Amino acid sequence: MRAEILATGDEILGGALIDSNSAFLAEQLELLGLEVTRHHTVGDNLEELVAVLEEIGKRADMAVVTGGLGPTSDDLTAQAAAEAAGVSLVLDRQALDDIKGFFATRNREMTPSNRKQAMLPAGAIVLPNRIGTAPGFAIRMGRCWFYFMPGVPGEMRRMFKDQVVPHIRQVFDKELHPARVMTITTFGLPESEVGERVAQVEHLFRGIKLGLRAKFPEIQVKLYGRCDDRQQNPDPLSKAAAWVCDRLGHNLISDRGLSLPAVVGQLLKQKQATVAVAESCTGGLIAHMLTNVAGSSDYFLGAVVAYANQVKTNVLKVDPDIIESLGAVSEQVVEQMASGVRNLTGADFGLATSGIAGPAGGSREKPVGTVCIGLATGKGVISRRYRLFFGSREAHKTIFAAVALNRLRLGLLASHC
Amino acid sequence: MRAEILATGDEILGGALIDSNSAFLAEQLELLGLEVTRHHTVGDNLEELVAVLEEIGKRADMAVVTGGLGPTSDDLTAQAAAEAAGVSLVLDRQALDDIKGFFATRNREMTPSNRKQAMLPAGAIVLPNRIGTAPGFAIRMGRCWFYFMPGVPGEMRRMFKDQVVPHIRQVFDKELHPARVMTITTFGLPESEVGERVAQVEHLFRGIKLGLRAKFPEIQVKLYGRCDDRQQNPDPLSKAAAWVCDRLGHNLISDRGLSLPAVVGQLLKQKQATVAVAESCTGGLIAHMLTNVAGSSDYFLGAVVAYANQVKTNVLKVDPDIIESLGAVSEQVVEQMASGVRNLTGADFGLATSGIAGPAGGSREKPVGTVCIGLATGKGVISRRYRLFFGSREAHKTIFAAVALNRLRLGLLASHC
Repeated sequence: MRAEILATGDEILGGALIDSNSAFLAEQLELLGLEVTRHHTVGDNLEELVAVLEEIGKRADMAVVTGGLGPTSDDLTAQAAAEAAGVSLVLDRQALDDIKGFFATRNREMTPSNRKQAMLPAGAIVLPNRIGTAPGFAIRMGRCWFYFMPGVPGEMRRMFKDQVVPHIRQVFDKELHPARVMTITTFGLPESEVGERVAQVEHLFRGIKLGLRAKFPEIQVKLYGRCDDRQQNPDPLSKAAAWVCDRLGHNLISDRGLSLPAVVGQLLKQKQATVAVAESCTGGLIAHMLTNVAGSSDYFLGAVVAYANQVKTNVLKVDPDIIESLGAVSEQVVEQMASGVRNLTGADFGLATSGIAGPAGGSREKPVGTVCIGLATGKGVISRRYRLFFGSREAHKTIFAAVALNRLRLGLLASHC
Repeated sequence: MRAEILATGDEILGGALIDSNSAFLAEQLELLGLEVTRHHTVGDNLEELVAVLEEIGKRADMAVVTGGLGPTSDDLTAQAAAEAAGVSLVLDRQALDDIKGFFATRNREMTPSNRKQAMLPAGAIVLPNRIGTAPGFAIRMGRCWFYFMPGVPGEMRRMFKDQVVPHIRQVFDKELHPARVMTITTFGLPESEVGERVAQVEHLFRGIKLGLRAKFPEIQVKLYGRCDDRQQNPDPLSKAAAWVCDRLGHNLISDRGLSLPAVVGQLLKQKQATVAVAESCTGGLIAHMLTNVAGSSDYFLGAVVAYANQVKTNVLKVDPDIIESLGAVSEQVVEQMASGVRNLTGADFGLATSGIAGPAGGSREKPVGTVCIGLATGKGVISRRYRLFFGSREAHKTIFAAVALNRLRLGLLASHC
């Protein structure tokens, strides 16, 4: 069962747009049990489109195609599909009614160019688009089933799940060997070391496939296994996941693919505890990461971004003499910041950062990449200095914020509230 | 001059990794003056690799290939290139010395598998890798020049600029028609409307190519023109850019591709003014965006993320009776938050947000997507309520933060300090 993926459009071909559709589709097709063998990208060029469709039709059993279904003259995919299939374009009544309905329910006017979107290759099966104007379509050319979908990621994903997956299941039926995926989140190790630690999993557990996905600064370990493994108890996929988690030790963040801020949130909820943050170099990023988690208002009270020293002293009550003598990037200052924000907000935990994200501001003693992190609890306050070199200002902010959240995570795991 | 791009590797083919290399290379090749006609992706599979290399060799004048040059048994690119070229793999002395040197200068041990990385197709030109172990190589197959580079983005980009571009310039010389690019940033219009407003630019200005890149919530308009336009003064590219800027009106953020926070920072610097932020629903994102700009400590004093109402009342001195009677998401509350953070920090401008990012917390009167934004200056405080529906919690935070920063931008443009 050979599956290929084609992305179309000058924006992707020319690099103005990074193609995320093909990665999404590849993962979904593999989970369905199809073997993806190639991706292609071509531009809004009829001759190239027809050529690549003909080539795919000779090689593959099925193919998914995104883009080029819009109303403008650059949108050539339906025409190319018709030429490759050796049929003509015909007005599809259902597609036209869907487009009319789309505009009617939104009180918008349908333009004549939208009518073009209802012109599909003769013999194609229309794939309705519930959230956009561009209908998709499925058509068989030789032995290969082609599924044409819009390039807008939201529309494509909806159409894939609602229309394409059921059709694939119906057409290919018993040839599919669906897989399950388990995602394990880790933090604090370079990707190469994560890879080395877990590399043996494919050899130790038959039928398990390994993938690593770097979501800086976290790394996800993905394990894929076939669904018929479910008959065993515990199944090989769960056994493999347990082995991987064991290999990751305290660098394991979540055995269910949760992010670091989500895990911190879970631990806070379990302990019915609250947190507040005092940020200097991370500039609001820790608060942003915590509040990206839905329901964070249950445990996150707030933050003070104390970028200027006057905010550190006036709002967080850091001793100006200590800033003067030891510098804002020091263990003593982050300890006072952590205690300060804890006192100011009444939170159970106060977390603080002060460091040098760069590009300027570094010194020989405190180079760019230096960060001090403080954690205040009811039992006192601790701090530590780190040196982390990651090149850019944004990368430094990100790694500083993650190290701080991980410090809080370890504190929550160790505390007995 | 037909150029094609091939990305290799199971992680990209299976969707575990999104391929950003191909977009980078496409843009760079187009700027050099080559016409990119296709991208491909295949996995770590010798047969597929050889087949696709042979196909490309028949169609293209040049091709860039990324990935598969590592030390493991999955790294098959050099072997595939040798098979496609009909030559054998031979040990390249220079490549081996480079790899040895890489390990020596880092006090790391070279493993036997790294020796494999110095095995290149006979007749290939080695492309040294200054920052990694995998050497690249260039080889001609038929009329097509192939450039093989590592898949690690940093190593690939360095090798492309230092080694591949000079070789392309030398080999293709007068067949190249280099282009320049100008980037214009806009905010506040849907992509379709930006497209409609500027679509005529390609017709009005001969030789100009248009591209749109959505960097939510900003949209970049990219204009590409040939370098020989420079002889005219002003050149067509600058004229086209001026026309586009005019069409965008007050939705123009930057005629040099700067982001909204960077433009706000520039305006604050020009006016020697400072800002502080009081964030509820945006949860630290505005502070994070402002502090992503290097040098932001010149004008950004700090922020209070007042997520819990007790932080709004205790730290920002918002009247609890007003929260009680009107709700935290109200014009009056954001006005008091904006004034509160301005007073607390001594900043010239106080910017505040309170809204409902979702998924929970919405009501009939104040649905998810509602946000109130307040701006306090020396002359008083203003506020406005917006309803912005963008689906997800993160999208709402992002659009709320951008609308607030744009409010500050418009305030800075209007103010006469």
